[in-house]
Amino acid sequence: MPPRILICSTIVWAHDDVKALLGDIGEIVYVDSPDRKAFLSEFKPGGKYEGTIGIYRENTSASKIGVFDRELIAGLPSSVKWIAHNGAGYDPVDVHACIAKGIYLSNTPGAVDDATATTALYLLISTLRQYARAERSLRELKWKPEGVNKVAHDVTGKTLGILGLGGIGLRLAELVQSFPMRVIYHSRHRNPNAPSYCEYFENVEEMLAQTDVLSVHVPLRQDTVGLVGEKWIRKLKPKSIIINTARGKVIDEEALIKALEDGHLAAAGLDVFPNEPEVNPRFFGFPQVTLLPHMGTENQDSQRKMEVRALMNLKDFLTTGRGKDLVIEYNQHPALLTALQKVKSKL
Amino acid sequence: MPPRILICSTIVWAHDDVKALLGDIGEIVYVDSPDRKAFLSEFKPGGKYEGTIGIYRENTSASKIGVFDRELIAGLPSSVKWIAHNGAGYDPVDVHACIAKGIYLSNTPGAVDDATATTALYLLISTLRQYARAERSLRELKWKPEGVNKVAHDVTGKTLGILGLGGIGLRLAELVQSFPMRVIYHSRHRNPNAPSYCEYFENVEEMLAQTDVLSVHVPLRQDTVGLVGEKWIRKLKPKSIIINTARGKVIDEEALIKALEDGHLAAAGLDVFPNEPEVNPRFFGFPQVTLLPHMGTENQDSQRKMEVRALMNLKDFLTTGRGKDLVIEYNQHPALLTALQKVKSKL
Repeated sequence: MPPRILICSTIVWAHDDVKALLGDIGEIVYVDSPDRKAFLSEFKPGGKYEGTIGIYRENTSASKIGVFDRELIAGLPSSVKWIAHNGAGYDPVDVHACIAKGIYLSNTPGAVDDATATTALYLLISTLRQYARAERSLRELKWKPEGVNKVAHDVTGKTLGILGLGGIGLRLAELVQSFPMRVIYHSRHRNPNAPSYCEYFENVEEMLAQTDVLSVHVPLRQDTVGLVGEKWIRKLKPKSIIINTARGKVIDEEALIKALEDGHLAAAGLDVFPNEPEVNPRFFGFPQVTLLPHMGTENQDSQRKMEVRALMNLKDFLTTGRGKDLVIEYNQHPALLTALQKVKSKL
Repeated sequence: MPPRILICSTIVWAHDDVKALLGDIGEIVYVDSPDRKAFLSEFKPGGKYEGTIGIYRENTSASKIGVFDRELIAGLPSSVKWIAHNGAGYDPVDVHACIAKGIYLSNTPGAVDDATATTALYLLISTLRQYARAERSLRELKWKPEGVNKVAHDVTGKTLGILGLGGIGLRLAELVQSFPMRVIYHSRHRNPNAPSYCEYFENVEEMLAQTDVLSVHVPLRQDTVGLVGEKWIRKLKPKSIIINTARGKVIDEEALIKALEDGHLAAAGLDVFPNEPEVNPRFFGFPQVTLLPHMGTENQDSQRKMEVRALMNLKDFLTTGRGKDLVIEYNQHPALLTALQKVKSKL
């Protein structure tokens, strides 16, 4: 029996690419399990997913079988060697459970940078200039919101603080150069790829004190839950703005709402929320906020690019033993990195 | 009696600058007339505006005394030599009536470029990515609009067609370079200041045929009313987008609505309308359009810059006889340009 490749989420754009990229390597199987229990049972001998070596997934997988948590990972057979996640944020996959089981996990970081940074740029412009509020006013037949010019600002010349200068943060820094904005950033480490116009602040509070617009680009991990909380928010300049296109839980929502209420923050632009698709209704009470339903990469050009990239990660692993975009947690497990080459020779 | 300088619209941001810039040159008088008739009568001997040499105005002047049309200009005394209009578009001032009377007219082109081009960029991103529609969906508690990823596109790599490459069009070309977009343009003449990445098309229809997003940046004149009509719209690529931050009447609204209805146009982003503040309610029936209440320069940073610039134009004229930003129609009247120097010597 040839190894199976399990397509665990709907392929929307790159349907033809699945066969072209992977058809010669293994048998392609599309998931059709009604729930998690049925899903896991099909990996058993005689099951439809028996012999699966690689899995393609994205977040819509969760609708029937749930996220790839510890329980689900534990239930996978030892034949499974690689999970190719479609998306930059891979918090819906328990990477530590994968590592414990010797399963490799890849994401699609580069493919999302442009689309997500564009979403952040949109939120930045909308909040500084108060455009979303202006459009609501027009649609309520009130033309301009009263006094909007007194709270709206030009983008050009303002200071953008980037929290987490990875691929998306770097791309946003590039996009705002055309205005230009001043770009300052804080990450755990200085990014060696950062162009000279990105000023590094080792001390996050010093960065916050100079920031007009803070854009959040850190992944969701245990240690980043609530990272942007009361203390950091109060270190921001009065009347500054927070943009979040990363994950809702990275910001302490109560602290954010409080700062909007008392006017310390002039506005917020949010594409992500702690319990999507739920949105805290208190945000609807702030006319100055712009709220998007996780539109980060929601367009056909980027989504096709992401699907192809995730499929390529699977193909590269299956044909060379070197899937690109292995997530960073594996860097702390040299034995697994070494073993990666050996997996190939066993195929 | 010193010459009077009439401030004909509310100065919102540059109040202190009025005195600093003009206080030593003439007597500053703030308009307080309840209607046009009262306004014109105050220029008579003994009137509050007698001896006025320069007038500062912007479009809010219109609320009581109406636009500066042929009748109003004709009613001004011969003492009036310079009208400093605050704004890029000066269609609310009849420049030909000014010329006939030997009155000079300036606008504030450079001061509006950045803010207006940023509005165009916002509309471009919002329509390509369908963000405004997405926000409405979220606020109706429906999370993402169904199928939005199938109609949304990345900005990067698309072709922007600029109709009219003046200051605002050039600034927009700069702003989209960071993605980049391909920039093509049509103007009556090639712009000698255009950077090499702006491709000139002498033939507008050839440009339209390659355009994904058309952004309109021509002034409203008799010969530009309805310039973007049925014929040009149909030359655009199917599923293209039109952005208008210039003047509503430059686009044939019926032709635009028809093309949205039959799907030739994927979307439109409009900051301006033919009869502001009225908006044709048929636009509310298109979920894919983004509609702003003329927010082009609506923010305190740019509005302060524009006020100061218009005041500077008055000051420069009154002190050197060379006001900057004299509008282009005077180029066809060399006698008036020559006379400009002589006005100063008579002051």
